[in-house]
Amino acid sequence: MRVGFLGLGAMGAGMAKRLMASGHELSVWNRSPAPAEALRREGARCLLDPQDAFQNEVVVSMLADDRAARAVILESGALERAAPGAMHIVCSTISVDLAKELIEAHGVAGVGYVAAPVLGRPDVAAAGELNILAAGADDAVARAQPVLDAIGKKIWLIGKEPYKANLAKLAINFMLAAAIETMGEAFTLAHRHGVDVETLRDVITNTLFAAPAYKVYAPVIAARTFEPAGFKLPLGLKDVRLALAAGEEAGVPLPFASVLRDNFIDALGHGDGEKDWSAIADVAWRRAGLT
Amino acid sequence: MRVGFLGLGAMGAGMAKRLMASGHELSVWNRSPAPAEALRREGARCLLDPQDAFQNEVVVSMLADDRAARAVILESGALERAAPGAMHIVCSTISVDLAKELIEAHGVAGVGYVAAPVLGRPDVAAAGELNILAAGADDAVARAQPVLDAIGKKIWLIGKEPYKANLAKLAINFMLAAAIETMGEAFTLAHRHGVDVETLRDVITNTLFAAPAYKVYAPVIAARTFEPAGFKLPLGLKDVRLALAAGEEAGVPLPFASVLRDNFIDALGHGDGEKDWSAIADVAWRRAGLT
Amino acid sequence: MRVGFLGLGAMGAGMAKRLMASGHELSVWNRSPAPAEALRREGARCLLDPQDAFQNEVVVSMLADDRAARAVILESGALERAAPGAMHIVCSTISVDLAKELIEAHGVAGVGYVAAPVLGRPDVAAAGELNILAAGADDAVARAQPVLDAIGKKIWLIGKEPYKANLAKLAINFMLAAAIETMGEAFTLAHRHGVDVETLRDVITNTLFAAPAYKVYAPVIAARTFEPAGFKLPLGLKDVRLALAAGEEAGVPLPFASVLRDNFIDALGHGDGEKDWSAIADVAWRRAGLT
Amino acid sequence: MRVGFLGLGAMGAGMAKRLMASGHELSVWNRSPAPAEALRREGARCLLDPQDAFQNEVVVSMLADDRAARAVILESGALERAAPGAMHIVCSTISVDLAKELIEAHGVAGVGYVAAPVLGRPDVAAAGELNILAAGADDAVARAQPVLDAIGKKIWLIGKEPYKANLAKLAINFMLAAAIETMGEAFTLAHRHGVDVETLRDVITNTLFAAPAYKVYAPVIAARTFEPAGFKLPLGLKDVRLALAAGEEAGVPLPFASVLRDNFIDALGHGDGEKDWSAIADVAWRRAGLT
Repeated sequence: MRVGFLGLGAMGAGMAKRLMASGHELSVWNRSPAPAEALRREGARCLLDPQDAFQNEVVVSMLADDRAARAVILESGALERAAPGAMHIVCSTISVDLAKELIEAHGVAGVGYVAAPVLGRPDVAAAGELNILAAGADDAVARAQPVLDAIGKKIWLIGKEPYKANLAKLAINFMLAAAIETMGEAFTLAHRHGVDVETLRDVITNTLFAAPAYKVYAPVIAARTFEPAGFKLPLGLKDVRLALAAGEEAGVPLPFASVLRDNFIDALGHGDGEKDWSAIADVAWRRAGLT
Repeated sequence: MRVGFLGLGAMGAGMAKRLMASGHELSVWNRSPAPAEALRREGARCLLDPQDAFQNEVVVSMLADDRAARAVILESGALERAAPGAMHIVCSTISVDLAKELIEAHGVAGVGYVAAPVLGRPDVAAAGELNILAAGADDAVARAQPVLDAIGKKIWLIGKEPYKANLAKLAINFMLAAAIETMGEAFTLAHRHGVDVETLRDVITNTLFAAPAYKVYAPVIAARTFEPAGFKLPLGLKDVRLALAAGEEAGVPLPFASVLRDNFIDALGHGDGEKDWSAIADVAWRRAGLT
Repeated sequence: MRVGFLGLGAMGAGMAKRLMASGHELSVWNRSPAPAEALRREGARCLLDPQDAFQNEVVVSMLADDRAARAVILESGALERAAPGAMHIVCSTISVDLAKELIEAHGVAGVGYVAAPVLGRPDVAAAGELNILAAGADDAVARAQPVLDAIGKKIWLIGKEPYKANLAKLAINFMLAAAIETMGEAFTLAHRHGVDVETLRDVITNTLFAAPAYKVYAPVIAARTFEPAGFKLPLGLKDVRLALAAGEEAGVPLPFASVLRDNFIDALGHGDGEKDWSAIADVAWRRAGLT
Repeated sequence: MRVGFLGLGAMGAGMAKRLMASGHELSVWNRSPAPAEALRREGARCLLDPQDAFQNEVVVSMLADDRAARAVILESGALERAAPGAMHIVCSTISVDLAKELIEAHGVAGVGYVAAPVLGRPDVAAAGELNILAAGADDAVARAQPVLDAIGKKIWLIGKEPYKANLAKLAINFMLAAAIETMGEAFTLAHRHGVDVETLRDVITNTLFAAPAYKVYAPVIAARTFEPAGFKLPLGLKDVRLALAAGEEAGVPLPFASVLRDNFIDALGHGDGEKDWSAIADVAWRRAGLT
């Protein structure tokens, strides 16, 4: 299939390569040209203007945040000039508000729309092992299926209104951040009482918490090696902020998310902006007087 | 081996039966007589006085809380009258402070001492599938080994000072409570945005959070069926209080544990004292105006 | 002086009347016409277009929030068409971000600019008893002085950069909200222990907390009479949200503000949106199982 | 009147001197002898044993905490040996639980009992300017009146059950700690945005927050001069802990108190144990990356 692809960060680049490896014909665009150039050498066509991507049957976008998604999708006028019958798979983690605006805008422009945020870090994306949270009208999801199959190992249908996949993604990222904070507090408590943190990590990740969320982050937190970043701390703050905004919109207090937000800000103020988001675990460490 | 067993609540009774099934000869005591009577019918000897348990080679105690453990072990004078060479395996979840007092008291009395709190609910105990967090001097742990092998499927060595096993247990129970609260907030957020909670549960327990902590509690929270209780809410409050006390003692602020404590109190004040501790997830539900 | 006045809510209307009573000649505008019409009967001139206000020497604006201020001041093109030498006194409680945009925009348009948010509720405004937090260049503040003198009883100079007055206003509104929450918790605790809340109110407002913040709100909270609203609850949430955003921007975690935000959302979700913002005190009451 | 006085810390010594200055005849005791010796030189009689104090008509106690009060009043056997008709005025800040035990014990021993915790720091005590929160049976309060009049400038009657005065005192100390934390957050926010903290202090303590709680602590926090301590930080943690315990007992979540507790622990872990309790304001400062 001819697929336009917008946004070639670490996640997007991995997903684009998976699409090419599955035989799809890619036209790619990225704000800075280097990542697109790299894909060109592997056979992709480079686009100078993101709206050209919408001349394909299917467009996949994996843009960094609301601002980028709004600029590239809505403010560019791309939807109005899209090829008849085009459809758009939005994989970005965006706000519920923007997700609802996108539903409206795609409807007006007559462009098919599926929200398909993904679970997994760049290495998982490159391996085609992502879990995909998909939401959209039945026929739109059906049309998106071959593309999603190439990107991920499993597609979870969240609902018929696309924004629901975005909400689910925010809820899950909040859960990940909460697991990180939980380990930060528990490991600091253990350490301060002379319990070996590696021992505690070993117990939890092989018993009650033997799941990827903990198996990925517990070793990082136990060893306090937050670089290189798999997912940078400011992006974590962004996602928690979006979860809080979604809570505010729906009348749901989220006290854990409020603690997380405070701790992300604390971490940023202590110079951890380039570190992995799991560095918020260091806030507990630091507040306990450890260095 | 001749084993004395103190404390036949749901957990203790299951553990005692496993010991009998493994060929150990049990003398049992419980504050209220019915559970001991039930075990007598299966071959145990009933004791009228808990200090008689300490006439055995090994004593296992699984008492409800600090108050019970202090009364039965310390204030009864049992240690002073223990048989020479006796050793005591304390499985209760107790405070770090009491754990340290017990180390001292057993040392003075010349009674061997291993702390061995367990991970698992009553059904896991009955099946002999508990994970055991053991800490004590090497020779004491070695002597306790045959008994612990009969009770659990795996023994995790936490350290040589017994109180460290108690601290680890408190840290893990805190982590469980945090996972429950996290799901309470995330599921309420999803529900309020029209996302089917069962769908979200399905995604998380099969992807990033595919671990017992979530597989056990997510269905309970999603369905909001908090009765019958596997572990009653006031016991959860007790454990979070002990974690907070351990944090205070060691200079470790635990903001998630503070939120948990507030929510346990909220739940108790709303009549949830007989429910499973996962009913604190209902605090988020209720605060969002849902009933 | 000829003064344009934008925004005739309860606060703005009181301030506009004070200006007229001091002999200033007013041209007024409000989004909905009724409040302007009321002032017309007292001698003001009504404007159909807010940008006409900027044909006066001085414009005072008291608009509801960022959205209104942005629309009326920036997006209307009013600054570009302002009379030469015009100056603008912005009394609204707005975000630090918008405050900085306004500095830039007034500079570009050559319109003088003073930020002058006020402390006080509508009755205080009508009595000319407001405290004014003023910030701006010395000459701009000097020119604003006669107008500010007519509005308030005291002008506090916060700095030379106008946004600082906005920040100070947000900090003080946060402090008020924190005082309300503090009383909510303390009074609920007292009530649950059988201590008469009126007695406690009497003690605190006549001893350690004998200040307007407490004297105004303690009786409201003690009697739980949150209607009619002096300052509606959603406006309180807005201000706390702006304080949190200012904290995030500057790397300052504000854990009390986070609790406040959660409680405002809780209150809104329980139908308190038309009540006074001090109704967040009822969150503590409700969480304690009281009704 | 012949008055026994127990506990001559900074507060107690000031109160004892006021009693002597009012013509009462004092017999004093303190755990460490120096403060009693100092009073002896001013005419007091020194007691070797605290129970001798109960041979007077009236005993006033101002002991440091639950542990001291329990030891001196309950475990010493003093009440059982008290002179017939003796009455006891307990000024210490103690837990509600202990307060209830004391009611019981005084009743059994037939000793009159009034709880009379005080508001004010040592300089206020020395000046006889304390506010006294008194609770007890009408006749007991009437008998205590001449003594209380000598100690404080105003007696607030909180109720007929003595523990209510203790609860009120805990509620007010919680309010003070919350005011301190509020200023810590607000001032840090202001400072980080370039607003002069002294200016903000000037505004608040002369407008909405013109009350002793703020007038005493705002200058300390603004200048960050937390030594010498008027009331040491660990005592502040103790009082917040007692407020939280009272909340737990009565089913009242206190989220602000939970934040305070975390911050007291943070401060202690950063070596602030000898500083004034207002040093918890430095937690906000430090978390914002300031030093």
